[in-house]
Parts: sequence; C-alpha cells; structure tokens
Amino acid sequence: MLPIKKESFQKPVQSIGLFGYGTVGKAVYGIIQNTPGLQASIEKIGIKDPGKKRNINEGLFTAHAGEILNNPCIHTIVELIDDADVAYQIVKDALWQGKAVVTANKKMIAAHFDELWRLQKHTGTPLLYEGACCASIPIIRNLEEYYDTDALSKIRGIINGSTNFILSRMQDDALPFTEALLQAQQLGFAETNALLDIDGHDAANKLSILLAHAFGCVIKPESLLYAGISKLHGDDVKYANQRKQKIKLVAQAQKLKNGKLAAFVLPQFIEAADELADIHNEFNGLITESHYTDKHFFKGKGAGALPTAAAVLSDIAALRYGYKYEYKKISTQNSIQLSNDYYIKVYVSADAFSKIKSHAFEYIDESQSQYGYCAVTGVILAQKLWEDTWWRQPGVSLVTCTDPITPDADYKKISRRSLELAGIT
Amino acid sequence: MLPIKKESFQKPVQSIGLFGYGTVGKAVYGIIQNTPGLQASIEKIGIKDPGKKRNINEGLFTAHAGEILNNPCIHTIVELIDDADVAYQIVKDALWQGKAVVTANKKMIAAHFDELWRLQKHTGTPLLYEGACCASIPIIRNLEEYYDTDALSKIRGIINGSTNFILSRMQDDALPFTEALLQAQQLGFAETNALLDIDGHDAANKLSILLAHAFGCVIKPESLLYAGISKLHGDDVKYANQRKQKIKLVAQAQKLKNGKLAAFVLPQFIEAADELADIHNEFNGLITESHYTDKHFFKGKGAGALPTAAAVLSDIAALRYGYKYEYKKISTQNSIQLSNDYYIKVYVSADAFSKIKSHAFEYIDESQSQYGYCAVTGVILAQKLWEDTWWRQPGVSLVTCTDPITPDADYKKISRRSLELAGIT
Repeated sequence: MLPIKKESFQKPVQSIGLFGYGTVGKAVYGIIQNTPGLQASIEKIGIKDPGKKRNINEGLFTAHAGEILNNPCIHTIVELIDDADVAYQIVKDALWQGKAVVTANKKMIAAHFDELWRLQKHTGTPLLYEGACCASIPIIRNLEEYYDTDALSKIRGIINGSTNFILSRMQDDALPFTEALLQAQQLGFAETNALLDIDGHDAANKLSILLAHAFGCVIKPESLLYAGISKLHGDDVKYANQRKQKIKLVAQAQKLKNGKLAAFVLPQFIEAADELADIHNEFNGLITESHYTDKHFFKGKGAGALPTAAAVLSDIAALRYGYKYEYKKISTQNSIQLSNDYYIKVYVSADAFSKIKSHAFEYIDESQSQYGYCAVTGVILAQKLWEDTWWRQPGVSLVTCTDPITPDADYKKISRRSLELAGIT
Repeated sequence: MLPIKKESFQKPVQSIGLFGYGTVGKAVYGIIQNTPGLQASIEKIGIKDPGKKRNINEGLFTAHAGEILNNPCIHTIVELIDDADVAYQIVKDALWQGKAVVTANKKMIAAHFDELWRLQKHTGTPLLYEGACCASIPIIRNLEEYYDTDALSKIRGIINGSTNFILSRMQDDALPFTEALLQAQQLGFAETNALLDIDGHDAANKLSILLAHAFGCVIKPESLLYAGISKLHGDDVKYANQRKQKIKLVAQAQKLKNGKLAAFVLPQFIEAADELADIHNEFNGLITESHYTDKHFFKGKGAGALPTAAAVLSDIAALRYGYKYEYKKISTQNSIQLSNDYYIKVYVSADAFSKIKSHAFEYIDESQSQYGYCAVTGVILAQKLWEDTWWRQPGVSLVTCTDPITPDADYKKISRRSLELAGIT
C-alpha cells in the first residue's frame, strides 16, 4: 500500500470580515460559530446602524467599513448587505486590497459585472458569488467548470424563489396575489423591496450573471427583455389550469441560427411533463442544453437564509483551495451578442380588448373575448415587445407560450399577418 | 475601464494517447477531430486487435501499450477500454510516468479506488473520471467541490441508464424483460456484458465511487448490499402500477443515527411525486441531501456514447486548467464506516410461498398469495439480506419500499415480530 505524503491537517484559521447582519448574515455567522471544523473566524461585522440591539458580542460590530477593509489580518470579505451601491464600493475596495470576496448580491454583480470581471483579472483576487444565483444550487460553478468543449445552446429555468412561491400559492391554493406575496415575505423568501422580485428585476439580474458564465455574454440586466408576475390575471391562471399547464416566471436564453443570443425573463405556460412544472414553492431549477450532453437539469432551494448561507459557506471553503472563476467562456469565445430580432409566441390578456395592440403581432392564432377578460395568442417580434409599452400597462398581462421562440423562417414564409389583417382570425 | 492583462490565447496543443476505440472512444476521437478549437490532438490509439479494419488512418493504431505510455510527447492518457484489469495496468503505468489520465471505467476505478487515490496523492498526477458515474451529469465534480461545510446526510438516485431504460420499456410499453434488454443493447445503452448492468454490478461500482466523493467512505463494491432487476416479476410491475408507483433500480446511501453509513443498490417502489419517478429511459438522476442546503437534484443522460464522450472531454479540458480531485472528504472526515446494521422495509415476491423465508423478517406488514405469485411486505435487518441467499434464488424478487430505511428504535420497541409469529399478520 502506498504511503500518503504527510499533509498539514492543521489548517490556518480563515479570518473573515463580514458586512451585513440580516437573515443571511446571521445564518452565516451562526453556522461558522457552531462549526469549529470550518476553521473560520468572523473577526468583525460591518453594519449600518451601530445603535441597534443585537444578541451577540457588541464589540464585533463596527459602522466603519475601513476598520474591516484596512485590517491586514482580515483576508476574506463576506459581503451580505442590501444596498447594492455600498456593496459595490466595499467589494471594489476589498479586491484592490487583495482581499478575496464572497458575496450574494446579484443586483450589485449584475450592475457592475464588466468592471468586477476586469478588476479580478487585473488584481488576480477572487470574487465568488454562488449564492447570487439560485441560492443553494451550485449553478455558477457548473456553468463555469463544465460545458467547455460541449458549448451550451440553451439555458432555461426558474431562478427566482419568491415569485415561484407566490405562483405556487396562487395555483395550488387559489390564493390571491397579495396574500401569496405576504406569505412569501413572512417566510423570508422575498427581497426587502418586494418589487425587485415580483417585477422580474431580480430574475433579470440573475439571468445577466448566468449569461456571462454560460455563454460568455456580458450585458447589463436592463438590456434584457423582462417582466414579472404582478399583473398576472386570475383568469390567466384559470386558462392554464384548464389546459393542465402551470404558469412560471421563466428565465431563458438560447442561441439563434444567426449566432446571436435570445434572452428574456417572462411568465411562461409550462406543460405537465416539463421539468419546470415540478419546481414548487421556493425551489429553483435550471435546464441546460448542449449538443453532445443533451439536457441537464439542476434543482434546489432558491431562496431562504440557510440555502443562501450554505452557498456562501461553500464559496468561503472554495477560497481555501485557491478557487476562482476563470470566466473561460468570456475569454475564449468571440463575444456572443444579445439580440431581440426573433419571433416569440405569447398569450396576452387584458381587461379591455382595446388595450391589446393586435396589429403589432405578425400572426394571431387565437383570440377570445368575454366581459372583462380578453386574450390573444400570437407571434410577435421580440424587438417590438422591447420597444413598446402597451403590454406593460395596468390591466394587461403577458405569458409566453410553451417553447415560445419560433424560428424566423416559419413566420416570414407563411406571413399570416396578412390573413389576420384581413380579419380571418 | 480597467485593462485586461495580456493573456496567451494561443493554447499549446494537448497531446493525447487514447486507449480503446469502441463507441465512446470513437465519439471522443470524432469530436476532437471536428473541433479544432479544443487544441487537442490524438497522437496514438491503443487497441487490442491490430488486424481489425477501421475507417481512419491506420498509422494511428498500435497494439503495444508501451508505444503510447513511453512516448514522452504524450502527456494525457484517455483510457476507454472494456477490460478493467488491462485498464488498471495502463492507468497505473501512466500515473507513475506523470501522465494525467482520464477514464470512464467505473469497474476499474471501483475495484482499485484505494490504490488509485493513494497513487494520485503519491505522484501528484491527476486521474479524472466524470464519465464513470451518471455519464454526462457532472456529479463527481459537484460532490467533490460542494458540500464541504454542509456535509451530506443522504444521496439517492438512478445511476444505471440501461436498467432504467429497460424498466421504462417494461412499465411504459409493457414489454417483457428480454425484449426491453435487447432494445437497450441495440441502442448502445448496455455494457458489452449485459449482466454487469442488469444484475446491479455496474450501479454498485458507481455507488462505491460516489461514496468516496460524497462521504469520504472508501469501500470495495462487493461490500455493498446490491441486486439488479433481472428477477423482477411481471406481477411486481403490475402491483406497482396499481398503486401508481414505479419500480426503479435505486442506489442509496444515508448516514445512520449511530454515525455509520447505510448503502445499497436495490429495486425500489417510487411514488409519483418523487423526482426519481420522472427519470425516464437512459436518463440518470441523483438527489443529495444536506442540513442547510436541503435537497439538490441533478438529472441528465446516464448512458450513450455522446453523453459519456462529453464527460470525458470535459475532463480533458479540466486538465488544461490543472484540475484534480482533492478527495477532501476522505482527507478531512474521520473515515465513515459502512454498516448493514439497520432495518429495511422490503416487498419480496416469489413463485412459491415456501421460497420466502418469512421468519427472517422482524415484522410483516402484509402478505398475499395467489397461484404462482406470493408476496410479503415487511421489515428485515439489512445484515440478514447481506448474509442470506434465499432472496437471490430464481423465482424470488425483492423490491424495497418507498423510504425503506427505518429507524432501529421503532422496530425494536414494538417488536411486532412476536405478533407475526403468533399468526396475527
């Protein structure tokens, strides 16, 4: 039997400066305190309000970021505050000072992806953020480490736990939207500002991060076509139920035939056989597609203090082994371009037919009208959704159909738009 | 905007010696040939039979392993041959010579895990084998890189694609076993020796590898309690159908209250709501459970030349970035011990009641008997299954119940065995 080379099993203690002591911060602190095997120690906690009563040693807290960032004994910064602007300053300062950073702040990363990527390249200091996308699911690491030679053609998933929780309550328990939202907030699944979740901003932030790791496509979240679930009508849910479908807020990105990338976050009708139909409550799930591998499906808890803390801790542990994102897809691919030049099949409902701009459609498949609820199913150029605001007005709701991206050719060839204009549909 | 440090984008070509030119070998060769961006080159292919006609440059082939292993220009060995003993020699020689190795040979790795782990530690040369478990699913890397601080309590999954394909055909299309097996073989999902799949050996090999990466538990596959699907009775399937359940070959391992590890590969009744119920055909799926993260579910193609080749190629690419398994769980945990000292709830059917050793059970829940098909549902000590052979006889079939591992206490306390003996059940 071969002898094992003697290793130093006495790991040095990892000295951590923590910013933020909210639900996730508390969970991270608690786990580190209760797990001596981690050999990690939180030296100082940066908070906004020093006057607030907290149930642990007050000497740990400071309202002066410099006290943490300038402390030469602290080598790892864990950033878990709410304010994305302040978070960005902290992360930037830390990286410049050569301190490795772990964060779960998707808004901050999405807003400054390009700068943060360049800063890591420049300083050689790692920034990890597994907790920023799909909480506990190790999705960034999988996108980062896998699919090198077998390039991804599509990713599609549910990446916001609180909207999925709300939709589950609305569909499974027939709860009204506001009550479902309240439950999500009480259980700690929603962002402090609930609009970030329900209007799709949070999912757009996450999708923009995923695009960089999956396709090497670095964009600002505001360049994405996205919407949330706050305008979903009770009758949209009924319509889905009748067809044994579900409505989920889906983030999707796929390569188009022209080599560009279509990407959006929109509600979507989901067939019962679809993996995403089985993503309940605060769970998240992502399906990747590539040529040789075919489909991979990842599922796990996408919200909540403990699952997010678990991802943060896994990043802290990874730093010990010198792990950093290589951003291989950004470096090696000719940067893939985002495009809204594709056709998308949607179901648009409204409380009055006049609110649906039907001449914006290339082709209308079906329309229905009854008192107080009208709907149209048809194909529209994504660029038109991007530019127009009619479908974002109060009383109008948009849900994409199953497999909504249609190859250009089909619709250009058939040009049924003319039929529709002639009043055939 | 920060400048990006100039990088050498001209990667050196990775010179590969390939062993084996079967379905996976051919797929790996084909992809490398058709993807110049990989910057990899297959210098030589080691095969058994030099006389066989092949459709590529004959000069590439050699029947002398030394020609590849002693070639100083070849730095990476990709081992994809059938014979586990020869494969072991090749891998050992390569590692001793400082050549990195990629293999998908689960039988070889499982049989020599301890030696291969020690050899890697000793030589510092990496051996990667993502393709050996669940083909395309990056499961080894996830077990290896994640769940450090949030230790796993349980893994459970379908890890053999060909038995799952056969069971899908038997249950969805009511095909008899032999016909379903033939289809699996024709589609290239089964091992050359089909017994390896259908008798559970292949899944036991894979589970033993997963145990090392998930729990740091290094054992020989033959220490596992395992069986396959070849003795499954048509009426077992009917019984499952009546209860809206499926039968799947499940590999499962979980920590017991006493700190030891229960692990087995056995057919299992699966409820419709279980993630594993949606693993169809050659797909594989694995559920991990840990304290903070809760459940993760991974799903993807578990058999077939291309999905396996994709995993092999992802390992080849990972070598470029200096990736190697750290075997952190083996090094850091006090080695967890495998145990058969737990109670397991099973359904045993037979063509004659006398074949079911009912007094081996602690407690019998239900029994049924009709001409040519008798069955008993009850709780039995796993150690008894391990030691006894009555349930492995022709005509006897065993399927574990849903959530089959029962806490000792329940059964020791109630001691219903006495009731059963008294003829109450």
